[in-house]
Amino acid sequence: MPTITHLSVRDIRFPTSHTLDGSDAINRAPDYSATYVVLTTDAGDGIEGHGLTFTTGRGNELCVAAVQSLAPFVLDRRLTDIRADPGAFWMDLVSDGQLRWVGPEKGVIHLATAAIVNAVWDLLAKRAGLPLWKFLVELQPEEIVRAIPFRHISDALSPAEALEILRRGQDGRAAREAELRATGYPAYTTSSGWLGYPDGKLRQLARAGVAAGWTHFKLKVGANLDDDVRRAQILREEIGEDLALMVDANQAWDVDEAIRAMDALAPFRPVWIEEPTSPDDILGHARIAKALEPYGIGVATGEHCHNRVMFKQLFQARAIGYCQIDSCRLGGVNEVLAVLLLAAKFGVPVCPHAGGVGLCEYVQHLSMFDFVAVSGSVDGRIIEYVDHLHEHFVDPVRVRGGRYLVPEAPGYSITMKPESLARFAFPDGPAWTEASEGHGVPTAADVAGVGGVS
Amino acid sequence: MPTITHLSVRDIRFPTSHTLDGSDAINRAPDYSATYVVLTTDAGDGIEGHGLTFTTGRGNELCVAAVQSLAPFVLDRRLTDIRADPGAFWMDLVSDGQLRWVGPEKGVIHLATAAIVNAVWDLLAKRAGLPLWKFLVELQPEEIVRAIPFRHISDALSPAEALEILRRGQDGRAAREAELRATGYPAYTTSSGWLGYPDGKLRQLARAGVAAGWTHFKLKVGANLDDDVRRAQILREEIGEDLALMVDANQAWDVDEAIRAMDALAPFRPVWIEEPTSPDDILGHARIAKALEPYGIGVATGEHCHNRVMFKQLFQARAIGYCQIDSCRLGGVNEVLAVLLLAAKFGVPVCPHAGGVGLCEYVQHLSMFDFVAVSGSVDGRIIEYVDHLHEHFVDPVRVRGGRYLVPEAPGYSITMKPESLARFAFPDGPAWTEASEGHGVPTAADVAGVGGVS
Repeated sequence: MPTITHLSVRDIRFPTSHTLDGSDAINRAPDYSATYVVLTTDAGDGIEGHGLTFTTGRGNELCVAAVQSLAPFVLDRRLTDIRADPGAFWMDLVSDGQLRWVGPEKGVIHLATAAIVNAVWDLLAKRAGLPLWKFLVELQPEEIVRAIPFRHISDALSPAEALEILRRGQDGRAAREAELRATGYPAYTTSSGWLGYPDGKLRQLARAGVAAGWTHFKLKVGANLDDDVRRAQILREEIGEDLALMVDANQAWDVDEAIRAMDALAPFRPVWIEEPTSPDDILGHARIAKALEPYGIGVATGEHCHNRVMFKQLFQARAIGYCQIDSCRLGGVNEVLAVLLLAAKFGVPVCPHAGGVGLCEYVQHLSMFDFVAVSGSVDGRIIEYVDHLHEHFVDPVRVRGGRYLVPEAPGYSITMKPESLARFAFPDGPAWTEASEGHGVPTAADVAGVGGVS
Repeated sequence: MPTITHLSVRDIRFPTSHTLDGSDAINRAPDYSATYVVLTTDAGDGIEGHGLTFTTGRGNELCVAAVQSLAPFVLDRRLTDIRADPGAFWMDLVSDGQLRWVGPEKGVIHLATAAIVNAVWDLLAKRAGLPLWKFLVELQPEEIVRAIPFRHISDALSPAEALEILRRGQDGRAAREAELRATGYPAYTTSSGWLGYPDGKLRQLARAGVAAGWTHFKLKVGANLDDDVRRAQILREEIGEDLALMVDANQAWDVDEAIRAMDALAPFRPVWIEEPTSPDDILGHARIAKALEPYGIGVATGEHCHNRVMFKQLFQARAIGYCQIDSCRLGGVNEVLAVLLLAAKFGVPVCPHAGGVGLCEYVQHLSMFDFVAVSGSVDGRIIEYVDHLHEHFVDPVRVRGGRYLVPEAPGYSITMKPESLARFAFPDGPAWTEASEGHGVPTAADVAGVGGVS
C-alpha cells in the first residue's frame, strides 16, 4: 500500500524567445516553460510520478507556488485510495474551501492542479508497467467513470451515459489497438508557420514538410490581415491543392473581426480557424461557426479552455467543430476524460493542442485512448506536432511520415532528463546564467519598468 | 508629472473561520484575506494609492506573488500617461505575452491585476481630492470610454454606444447626486443568514435586522435542501410578508438540481437565486433563469464572474436578472466600467457583491457612479452589506437604516489602518502567532496531509 510521501516542484524554462520558435499573434516571444512536479512514495522501488504544466515563461513561478499550496492535498495519500476513487481524489484537489476562491478551476491554480494530477497518473501507469494510454484502455468502463468529475456537467453527460459510451467503446477494441500499433495516429505540423518566421523560412519549411510526408500544415495568423493572406498564399503554393491547411489566430480578433478576416482567408480553404477570439467567448465562437459554415471552415479551440464546464457549453452551443483539449490547461487526466466523453456524446472530434514543452508527449496518450476505447475513430482527428524540445525527454515522441508512433514505455512520457532539469532550472541553471551574460534574456524588467518592489 | 516609483504588497489575513462568519455551502470556513498593494510616487506629497484583492485565506500567497510578477508593468509609469489613456494602461497590464498564458484575464493573475488597478484609481482620486465615485462622475464621457477595455466585447458594446449611454447619463446628474447625498443608496444584509449559524442565531439576527431598518435579507442555501427550506421558513417568519428575501447557493448545485431546489424554495418568494451553479456556466444560468421565470425569481451571479467577456455572454444569453459585479474579481475599475456599460445597454440592474474584507468599501463607489452617471436608476438595485471587518479601514462604510451613506473622503475608501496591517500580517503578525498558540489556526496541513514538500 504505497503512500505518496514527498512532492518536489521545479521552475524549468527554455529560452525559446531567442529564435521566435512558438511566436504567434498573442504569444510574441514565449520562453517555453514547465512547472515540473515529482512525486515519490514509501514503496522503496524507486518509481516516481512525474508531471508538468506548460507555461510560456513569466508566470511559471506562480504555478510553482500554486503546486506548493496544493501539495498538502496529495501528500500522505495511499495509492490504493486514489485507485479506488480517483474522482473523489480529484474533487478534493479542486474543492478546498479557501483555495478555490482564487480559481475556481481556472488559471494558475488549475494549471498547478494538472501538474499534480498528471504526476499521479504517471505514477499509477508506471507502477502498472504500462504506457498511460494502455493503462487507461485496460481500466474497466466503471473505473473510468469513477475517475470523471461530473460536477457541473451532469446536465450534459450523466455517469450512466458515460458508461454506455465506454461500454460501446469495448467493441472492436483489440482491432483498433492493432491498427494503432501498425500505422500510428495522424498528426499535423505547426513547425513551419510561426508568425515570427520570414516568408522565405515559411516557404522552405513547408517544402521540407511536404517532403517529410506531412499532410496537414498550420499557419499562425491574426496580427495583420495582409500578411495573413500573403502567408496563406505561400503555404498553399508549397503544399498544393490536395494537402490540408489550418489557420490559428490565437485569440487576436473580436467576433465580427474574426468573421471578416476569415472571409479574406476562405479562398485558401482552411480546414479550421483556431482560437478566432477570446477563449471565454462561447457565444462568440458559436456566431463565428455559423458564419463560416457556408465555407466549410470549422471552428477549433481549447488550449485556453480552462475546464469541462466551458467545453460542455462549447458543445451545447454547437460552437466548435474540433475540440482541442490541452493536457494541462484542463485539470489533468481526470478532467480530460470528462471532456473526451462529452466530445463523444456530442460527436465532436478531439484534436489535442500540443507543442510547447511536453505537450506532444502527453497528448499522444489521450488521443490513442480516445481512438481505442471512446470514439473508436480517427476521422477528422489529428494531433498537433511541433518539432522542438523533445530531446529533453527520457521517452520522447516518435513521429514518422506525419504520424505519431505508439509510445511503449511505462507512464505518461513526461519524465525529463536530469541534465535538462539541471541546465534549464530558472533562474539559476546554466542555460540562464550563461545566457544573461550573453545575448540578454528578456525579463519582466526588460519588457516594462524597473522601479522598486517590496 | 509624478511617476509611480514603488509598489509594496502584503499578505493580510483575518481568522474569520473561528466564528463561521462568512460560511456558505462552498466556502465553509473562510479566513477573509487581502492581497494589499500600496503604490508610492516621486511627488513628495505623501499621497499613496491603496488597493486590495479579496481572497478567503489559502491562495492569498499566490495573489501576492502575482502582484510581484505584474509590478514591472505599473512601475515607472507617469500618472499623466495613465490619465491620458487609462485603457491602454489596463491592456498593457493584462497583455504580457508570457504572463497572459497563466490567465488570461482570470484566476490568480486577474485578482492581482485588480489590486494594482484599484490602487492606481485610488491614487488618481486622492490626488484629485475626490471620493472615487465623484472622481468618475466628474470625468467626461469620452474619458470614461478611453478607460474601458473594449477588446472581445465590441460585438455587444461599441465605444460609440458606450459614449451615447454616458452622454444620456449626463441629464439630471445633479439632481441624482443631491438625492444620493440626501438618502443614500439602498442595501441588503447577508449578516444574518450564514450557513454555519444555528437556527436560533439566524432567527435572532433576522429579528435584530428588521428592528434596525433592513428591508432585504439574504440566506445561504445549497448544502442540504431540508435545512434550506426550514431556514427560509424561519427567515420569512421573522421578516414577515412585506420585506424581501434572497437566497444564495454559492455554486453548490448542478443545473437540474438547481431548478429542483428552487421549486422547493419558491414558496418563500425569494427575489433572486444567487450563484445557483458553476460561475462558468452561462448556458446553465440561462436554463435556470428560464425555468424560474414563472415564479418571478431572478437569477443573480457575478462574484466569480471572472471578466467582461463572461458578463457579456450572461447578458447576451439573458441568463441573469441581476448583475453582481465584484470589484476585484473583475480586473479593477477599468473592467468594472465595461460591465456597468454593458449592463446599462442590456437593461440589467447592477447589484454588487460585497462583504469579505473591503468589498463594501469598494462597491459603494461603483453603484453610486452607476446611479449618477450611467443607469440613472436605483430600481431593482441594491448593494450587499455585511457587518464585519469595517473597523480596520480608515474610512469605513457608513450604513444607516438599510442604506449606504455617501463616502466623502478622497479615494476608493480601501486604505487600511496601519495597526490592522501589522496585526493581521500573515503568517507573522500577532493575530496569527498568538492564535496558533491558542485555538489552532487551520492551515493547509490541518485540512489535508503533512508530508514533505521541496
